[in-house]
Order: sequence, then C-alpha cells, then structure tokens
Amino acid sequence: MGNLEELIRDIPDFPKEGIIFKDITPLLIDPAGLKESVDKISEHYTNKKIDVVVGAEARGFIFGPPIAINLNAGFVPIRKPGKLPYTTESVSYDLEYGTDTVQIHNDAIKKGQNVLLIDDLLATGGTMAACCKLVEKLGGNVAGCGFLIELSFLNGKDLLKDYDLFSIIKYS
Amino acid sequence: MGNLEELIRDIPDFPKEGIIFKDITPLLIDPAGLKESVDKISEHYTNKKIDVVVGAEARGFIFGPPIAINLNAGFVPIRKPGKLPYTTESVSYDLEYGTDTVQIHNDAIKKGQNVLLIDDLLATGGTMAACCKLVEKLGGNVAGCGFLIELSFLNGKDLLKDYDLFSIIKYS
Repeated sequence: MGNLEELIRDIPDFPKEGIIFKDITPLLIDPAGLKESVDKISEHYTNKKIDVVVGAEARGFIFGPPIAINLNAGFVPIRKPGKLPYTTESVSYDLEYGTDTVQIHNDAIKKGQNVLLIDDLLATGGTMAACCKLVEKLGGNVAGCGFLIELSFLNGKDLLKDYDLFSIIKYS
Repeated sequence: MGNLEELIRDIPDFPKEGIIFKDITPLLIDPAGLKESVDKISEHYTNKKIDVVVGAEARGFIFGPPIAINLNAGFVPIRKPGKLPYTTESVSYDLEYGTDTVQIHNDAIKKGQNVLLIDDLLATGGTMAACCKLVEKLGGNVAGCGFLIELSFLNGKDLLKDYDLFSIIKYS
C-alpha cells in the first residue's frame, strides 16, 4: 500500500476553467486504497457510538455504506428533491449562483441518535452544513463529518465549526 | 436477523400513478439488513475472481463499494453525461420516452478483467444492459450482474440473458 494521496488525480479546468478537480476514481479502483480509505474514516469514529451514517447523493453514497458496515450502523441517503419516495424534510442553501435543496426521509433518524455524515470531499462546506441541519431537524446528534479529502484553502471548516471534522488528505 | 423482504417498503403511486415503488431505505438503515444484503451478493461471486465492481449513479453507488471491499476488488462508478472528469466512453439506450446515456472513464477497466456490475433493483434491465456494453467496450469480461431486488414480472433477465444474474429478493 502506497500513499493514498498518490491515488488522487488532478484534472485541470474541470468542471470549469481555472478549477483543478480532485479525481478520486484511481483510488476507488485500487482495492487496497479503497479499503484503507474506508477503514481510516471508520477508525476515527469507532468509539463515538455511531447509530447512523448519512451520505448525500451521489458521491456520498460511495463511502457511506462501507463505513456504516464497519461501525455496525445503518445508512441513510440524503437526496436531491423528488428522488426519495416517502415523506421528507428539506433544507435549502445558497450556491454561488442560486440555491440548492437536499432532502431526507422524515423517519430516517430517531431523536438522540448519533449520526456520522460522510462525503468524499470538503470544499466550501455548503452541502455538508445543509445535511447537518437536516439531521438536526429530525432530532439527531451530529457526531461528526468525515471526508476523504479536504480542500483546506476553501475554509469549509468555518461553516462546520460546531462539528467534529475528520479528513484523510488535506490540500492547503 | 429477520427476513430481508420485511425491510422493503411499498410506496404506491411513486414516481407516478399505478407504480408501486420498492423503497429500500428501511433495509439500509437496519445495520444487520445492510450487512446481510452486501454479504449475500458478495458470497455469490466470491469464487469468480472479480477484479472490479461497477455501479451506476446513484443507487448503484450504495451496494457497489462494500461488495468490492468484500471481494478485494476495486470500484468503478458509471455516471450520467458530464459528471466524470477524465476521458470517457459512452453508451446510449432507449427509455419509454426518449433516450439516456451512461459514461465510464476509458481507463477504468483493463482488457480481460472480470467485472461484477451491481445495482439495487433490476426492472426492465435497460440501464444494466447499457452498463454491460460500456464494460465490454473497454475489453472487460462481464462476470455477473448482482441486485438486491428483481422485479421478475418486468422480464429484465431477457435483456441480460448473456450474463450470470443474481438477486436476493424476487417479486413475481
């Protein structure tokens, strides 16, 4: 097993000019890299009595379920509007241009459950902050937010300052 | 551990009138149900020397990675157009009205690798057949297609007759 950071590929000018996209697919395709990533995030939260792991569509679905299995927890998906079939709670949040909305089933989390939120990458933190609000609306306790990658220069941790953050790879 | 089928919830008239949607979220949130589902699909393919597990956006991302970890394989995402950052192969396929397209990174699979494709639910099989074509375009060998649920009455297995299919729960 080499360095996980060597399995991240830089893609210049994606999705638009001037942005260097961190492509995690070389890591996902590496059996040891995939397992080590999942295990490292799981280990950080192993003593936090996590009841539920939450991941947001689409890339939060990749690391959330195997971390849930490691922690003997359930997995709850957060989705874009209209995708979840049962009754939902919603939170809207500001983007650079316009707003976006995330939804969760309103029976997904019981009051007082310890919830770990997972995504592949922390950028400005807008989506993750909205997901934390959704969990809290249902009475859940946000026990932490775990990421594979943190783009520290975008200061997402400021927006998530109330929570226990963990990321394996940080770019400053 | 009870019966996995008891953890599937029927939602009438979703996403449109007359359709009974099979909601898997009560299963995902049940730690034993989630683990048992992942383990059962993994066990079916455990002797097939799987190199790569492939899942399509978004719900194929849920079961694909933990099955990949179980099988000591890598995970490759198939996505909707414009979502993958590197160079891609594409396959388009017919829907009831119009067409849809799926994409894969063109370096994701090496010639001759054994590939297991995973999704939560087999309906008509159109998306899965397109995903199999993508894998074959890259020279991969489709070693099987695994599902949590099969809606047998929609005859998806006819479209996928060339492949080893496995599903845990069948509705006829």
